[in-house]
Amino acid sequence: MKKMEQLYEGKAKKVYATDDPNLVIVDYKDDATAFNGLKKGTIQDKGIINNRVTNHLMKMLETKGIPTHFVEEISDRETIVKKVTIVPIEVIVRNIAAGSLSKRLGIPEGTKLAKTVLEYSYKDDALGDPMINDYHVFAMELATPEELSLIADYSFKINDLLTDYLKDLNIELIDFKLEYGKTADGTIVLADEISPDTCRFWDTVTHEKLDKDRFRRDMGNVEDAYQEIMKRLLGE
Amino acid sequence: MKKMEQLYEGKAKKVYATDDPNLVIVDYKDDATAFNGLKKGTIQDKGIINNRVTNHLMKMLETKGIPTHFVEEISDRETIVKKVTIVPIEVIVRNIAAGSLSKRLGIPEGTKLAKTVLEYSYKDDALGDPMINDYHVFAMELATPEELSLIADYSFKINDLLTDYLKDLNIELIDFKLEYGKTADGTIVLADEISPDTCRFWDTVTHEKLDKDRFRRDMGNVEDAYQEIMKRLLGE
Repeated sequence: MKKMEQLYEGKAKKVYATDDPNLVIVDYKDDATAFNGLKKGTIQDKGIINNRVTNHLMKMLETKGIPTHFVEEISDRETIVKKVTIVPIEVIVRNIAAGSLSKRLGIPEGTKLAKTVLEYSYKDDALGDPMINDYHVFAMELATPEELSLIADYSFKINDLLTDYLKDLNIELIDFKLEYGKTADGTIVLADEISPDTCRFWDTVTHEKLDKDRFRRDMGNVEDAYQEIMKRLLGE
Repeated sequence: MKKMEQLYEGKAKKVYATDDPNLVIVDYKDDATAFNGLKKGTIQDKGIINNRVTNHLMKMLETKGIPTHFVEEISDRETIVKKVTIVPIEVIVRNIAAGSLSKRLGIPEGTKLAKTVLEYSYKDDALGDPMINDYHVFAMELATPEELSLIADYSFKINDLLTDYLKDLNIELIDFKLEYGKTADGTIVLADEISPDTCRFWDTVTHEKLDKDRFRRDMGNVEDAYQEIMKRLLGE
């Protein structure tokens, strides 16, 4: 596998072509951003932690029947993944009220929701990733009804699998963001990452935040929180 | 029917008790507000026009199988309606991109949407009526799945009926807002109003705006537009 030209640089990752047209290499950075890029910083070793945590969780999900883009981890920061076209919909799954939902709907952070909430955002930085619903998805032709139904089903199943898995590690899964991609043959697979950047993780007992909210809210001990997540998940 | 104490004063209407516990009287004001009450003004005779236009359209919808709160028009500004508990969900139906949708999703005003869009807002002035989806409705227990399904079905049917009805009057129905209420026996009925305050009406040929956008956007000829809608609908 040969690492070739850079295809894309995002806020937290770079993507490189390979000599296989169906595979690319993701390279995780330590750069941290929040509030749609308005706040910028660095979290030491975040790239390593997010790469390894994401791969660990994607491998677990694959064994439970969720197709993902994961192929092979090739270094601390680099992973070979299937080349996909990203579906321009961010899926947010919420078990406990926090962050933008608490603010928007006036539900105090930490309130258990009577039902799991799924939200969609239109993935567009210039527009600030606005919230959309199923009807917007179809009106803008971002996905077909069959694709969106599959994405919703996968997202609820991933929520159940992750919640159970993390509970044993004393981590409460408050909410998280997922992205999906379409491979060359049209298969929908889980893409992007599952990490303290994209999930709210709280310690089950102390309710201490172990995720990017420590960076967003200037709470300190950001690196410690990321390291703690890696330690609980990977035992190191 | 005796008009008794005022129960409620909203931005555009007052509601009075009657000597029948299942009926109230709605009294339409000329007060106009926009942007969640930030912009205030008066539109002369708006109360008369909105009362008469709403009743005219609700009567039409009743004959086509949509249950409404309408009972009897008793004066230019006053109508007897069924007493309901308002379902705290604003339903927005969109055929053509305009207003907040255009701004939020970057779709130029006037673009025909590939599919009709339904949006829900949580009816809460203090929060600015934030957009919600089905999952929020269930998590916040604002309506049951059966109630929300009925509300969506009615809203699509009302859209078809109004669109057809208005087309013959050279009025294009761009988008509109609906509210529903529950009567004492739990029946869901269409409530609130259907008027140039709550609908975007464009002249089919000239695309001239004949609705509250003339007030929101300081376009002038606000009263003329409201009068024109009454004239086309009621022939006077």
